[in-house]
Amino acid sequence: VTTAPTVAPRVTEADLDTFRLAPGFRAASTACGLKPSGRPDLLWVVADAPCVAAGVFTTNRVAAAPVVLDRQHLTRAADRVAAVVANSGCANAVTGARGIDDARRTATLAAQILGVEPEQVLVLSTGVIGVFLDMEKIVRGLATLASPAARTAAGDAARAITTTDTVPKIATVERSLPGGRIQLAGFAKGAGMIHPDMATMLAVVTTDARILAPRLDRALRAAVERSFNRISVDGDMSTNDTVLVLASGTSDVMVDEGTEQAFTEALTEVCASLARQVARDGEGATRLVEIRVTGAAEEAQAHRVGDAIACSSLVKTAIHGNDPNWGRILAAAGYSGAGIEPEHVRLWFGDADEIALLEGGLPLAFDRAAASQLLARDPAVVHIDLGLGDAHAIVWGCDLSAEYVRINAEYTT
Amino acid sequence: VTTAPTVAPRVTEADLDTFRLAPGFRAASTACGLKPSGRPDLLWVVADAPCVAAGVFTTNRVAAAPVVLDRQHLTRAADRVAAVVANSGCANAVTGARGIDDARRTATLAAQILGVEPEQVLVLSTGVIGVFLDMEKIVRGLATLASPAARTAAGDAARAITTTDTVPKIATVERSLPGGRIQLAGFAKGAGMIHPDMATMLAVVTTDARILAPRLDRALRAAVERSFNRISVDGDMSTNDTVLVLASGTSDVMVDEGTEQAFTEALTEVCASLARQVARDGEGATRLVEIRVTGAAEEAQAHRVGDAIACSSLVKTAIHGNDPNWGRILAAAGYSGAGIEPEHVRLWFGDADEIALLEGGLPLAFDRAAASQLLARDPAVVHIDLGLGDAHAIVWGCDLSAEYVRINAEYTT
Repeated sequence: VTTAPTVAPRVTEADLDTFRLAPGFRAASTACGLKPSGRPDLLWVVADAPCVAAGVFTTNRVAAAPVVLDRQHLTRAADRVAAVVANSGCANAVTGARGIDDARRTATLAAQILGVEPEQVLVLSTGVIGVFLDMEKIVRGLATLASPAARTAAGDAARAITTTDTVPKIATVERSLPGGRIQLAGFAKGAGMIHPDMATMLAVVTTDARILAPRLDRALRAAVERSFNRISVDGDMSTNDTVLVLASGTSDVMVDEGTEQAFTEALTEVCASLARQVARDGEGATRLVEIRVTGAAEEAQAHRVGDAIACSSLVKTAIHGNDPNWGRILAAAGYSGAGIEPEHVRLWFGDADEIALLEGGLPLAFDRAAASQLLARDPAVVHIDLGLGDAHAIVWGCDLSAEYVRINAEYTT
Repeated sequence: VTTAPTVAPRVTEADLDTFRLAPGFRAASTACGLKPSGRPDLLWVVADAPCVAAGVFTTNRVAAAPVVLDRQHLTRAADRVAAVVANSGCANAVTGARGIDDARRTATLAAQILGVEPEQVLVLSTGVIGVFLDMEKIVRGLATLASPAARTAAGDAARAITTTDTVPKIATVERSLPGGRIQLAGFAKGAGMIHPDMATMLAVVTTDARILAPRLDRALRAAVERSFNRISVDGDMSTNDTVLVLASGTSDVMVDEGTEQAFTEALTEVCASLARQVARDGEGATRLVEIRVTGAAEEAQAHRVGDAIACSSLVKTAIHGNDPNWGRILAAAGYSGAGIEPEHVRLWFGDADEIALLEGGLPLAFDRAAASQLLARDPAVVHIDLGLGDAHAIVWGCDLSAEYVRINAEYTT
């Protein structure tokens, strides 16, 4: 039901060592002291020449300062972005006017170092909320990024953006368009917590495609809709969620009307891979859960059903316990608000629909031990067919473990 | 912000011993063998003479057979209901046409015993889904209910409807209306699981008020909106949820246009008490959580904000860990879709707003140890003022513990 690979890649140290941004971009990272652990917490991605960018941001009404600033900068300068500065260790959220000033000062400082205008710089933050950025550390850290002391491997930038992620998230795709080959390379963080505050999902994708800002914006919105908007760890939306894409154009391959769809598919593939890596690394999660919804009247209906199933605490705990408790899945579909018709529903477990559980809304006899084994796989795959049409969607989540509760309750601030 | 008592009563054995239905109703209960444990699992509430009834049912598209049947019976005979038959141990859900037949046969058998029409009997079921009712056990059990072998204490009926509830839920209210005193007495079950399947919330409220069916229906809908619709244990909506109210009229106190509001308030009080008892007994919960939302532009906005906070896994785990992590509360309000304005938000912990955390959307300095102690109380009270108007709402939930995961994952079927 999708062209994207369904298994989240396991990022290894070797993968990180060979990870490169798309041509036209370079990274630098350092530890500026925002993380009490002393681990890397500041990075930038710099374009060799002003590039085209687009962003998708949290819809939380409580938007962090970097989100507010980036929206302004993209409105004014989406066709000449010079850099993205990102820090972990502090979310700069719920920090009022001073928070906005700090975010703007970060952009201005980076712009001065790079010899560009402040509005050409975007900023990202993740970490504790309700705490002000330590601007002294930021000032020193930015100076380090421009110095020989900085780490320049892209894999190190992917590491520096993580908080309590257990593994960095990276993805690359190459695609042949009529004008030539283009590359896309992105990294993300998410599902971890910092000194338990809310998780933040951040992603930066680079490409060497040549593309106009409105087209890039449209492609990103479409890609995010089928990737980051299709994952759930705990249903809590952060104040800082941001996905940025930067296009350097150095490939000289123009993305036009004829190739926009192919580019959007490639971008979707990178975003979906990063999204699955985030879901797989959900707090306390032991496996990725993939909910495939087919036979929907329209894609939005499929998405809604998948979302309700992926977010259900009862489904998530059942999968954690390898319990083939299909009643919880059907009930979640029933209350999703998507208007399912129970008498048409079919349900399977397994990547290849190995075990059928429901047919025409009625239970089938099945091998419980075999079903339990299917749920223990990573990813655990659930397939529900609504019997109403041809539309489909995939939603990714994770299981819910006692470890999730421990991370979020027992490690108090 | 409400007239209802805010602390969930702890039901004791003594409370159960003295619990009585409203005049005009009698109860009987027995163990018919649906529960493998051999504990009581069948009961009825019989009206001395045909009574007026109203019901509110799950909106889950996957509605259990008893829900389908009761809707039909109430459409035809809401002004002459004779009895409610309830069983635990089997939900009779996802059982297709045979499930409907079984529910109808249960009503018909009870009607024959009681000398009334089948459509005068309502049925309730809770327990395992996808399993057919054992009609032989139901037949024998109904015969026992009519015999001297039945338990006739109302407290025993409240016990028989429970599944893995740790305590039965009962509530009584007396109210003086212009025409005289009326009584209301109800019992409920919820938050427990059977052989881990989804939780079901069932409630039966009796009253000796005299009231016409449409007025009773209106009063019940208003009461449920401010009670059972304001609780969340895990956000999963059951296929069997049902709240019934039966009015015998034996007090001869007529509820008319002038007294409808007073009656509705009394009914709301009973329902809210039962609802809080259900939330307090949420799976794995160690305390009731009360979210008070004030300063809303309208009640629906207050409800939506309270619901998002009460349902947030991050808020629930923070409260479980006594962690004064207000950022999670603000973030949940932000993504609730209720259109809050962060710069107007104020936030407190404690039953008497003991500790202020946010003012004008900005963090205040506060005593973390004292805040942590407030969250450890039962109930843990969170008060958020939106600064947008005069409307308000209270939503009840519970904390999220590792025990919740254990109950729902480690006890596999």
